[in-house]
Amino acid sequence: MSLDGTYDDANIFAKIVRGEIPSARVFEDDDVLAFMDAFPQAKGHCLVISKTSKARNLLDVEPEVLVKVMAAVQRLTRAARKALKPDGIVVTQFNGAPAGQTIFHLHFHVIPRWEGEALGRHGGGMADPAELQALAGRIKAALD
Amino acid sequence: MSLDGTYDDANIFAKIVRGEIPSARVFEDDDVLAFMDAFPQAKGHCLVISKTSKARNLLDVEPEVLVKVMAAVQRLTRAARKALKPDGIVVTQFNGAPAGQTIFHLHFHVIPRWEGEALGRHGGGMADPAELQALAGRIKAALD
Repeated sequence: MSLDGTYDDANIFAKIVRGEIPSARVFEDDDVLAFMDAFPQAKGHCLVISKTSKARNLLDVEPEVLVKVMAAVQRLTRAARKALKPDGIVVTQFNGAPAGQTIFHLHFHVIPRWEGEALGRHGGGMADPAELQALAGRIKAALD
Repeated sequence: MSLDGTYDDANIFAKIVRGEIPSARVFEDDDVLAFMDAFPQAKGHCLVISKTSKARNLLDVEPEVLVKVMAAVQRLTRAARKALKPDGIVVTQFNGAPAGQTIFHLHFHVIPRWEGEALGRHGGGMADPAELQALAGRIKAALD
């Protein structure tokens, strides 16, 4: 998918927002949702999305939505740090398939990193849902 | 450097803000500065930083600073897309050395990607300053 295109309401994150498919939710409000990536590149890999916007990426997102999403990214990053005590945390956002984007609903990755541990390949394997729920619970408990 | 630590006023980006070392600037105002990465991982690799905050990373940045920085990231991403017509754009932000952070002044990378072209290693080589100025000029001309 190129950087242009129209938003597809049938994308996986839209289904997660609507509750049509399950996810390990960390927190949510009317505007944003933070949940565990089902194909984690590292332990604690989580995502933040808007629940209201039909933005595909950073190019087309409404500025007021971006403000709310980034506040959630910061909150999630702080909680993941407190809960999991990683050595570092990567925050990343892909625009377009050649940049690594696979789901065309704007999302930010929050990926804990540990010294000496390489990142796994994205989409390398699906995580155990019970394990994701446990991680989501730990991060949720560390939210400010 | 761990995720904890104190801000060091002698970091390279602080020097760039103060004009003590040169940079290829794309745009700036009282709050933010967008400029070309001197060690680009791809053509058009640029950075956004705050000019006012002593935040080392996303964990410690003031929310009102983050709002301004992200608005600049979006503006820069749109301009880089328009100017350079990449196939995709990666936006990324590293927290802590094990996550890839090398300069401990909060910054966001905006990295154009082209189909079939792998990302270069960060810090792999210093770019030609004249080439960076030319790229900065092209992106600047595409700003909304």
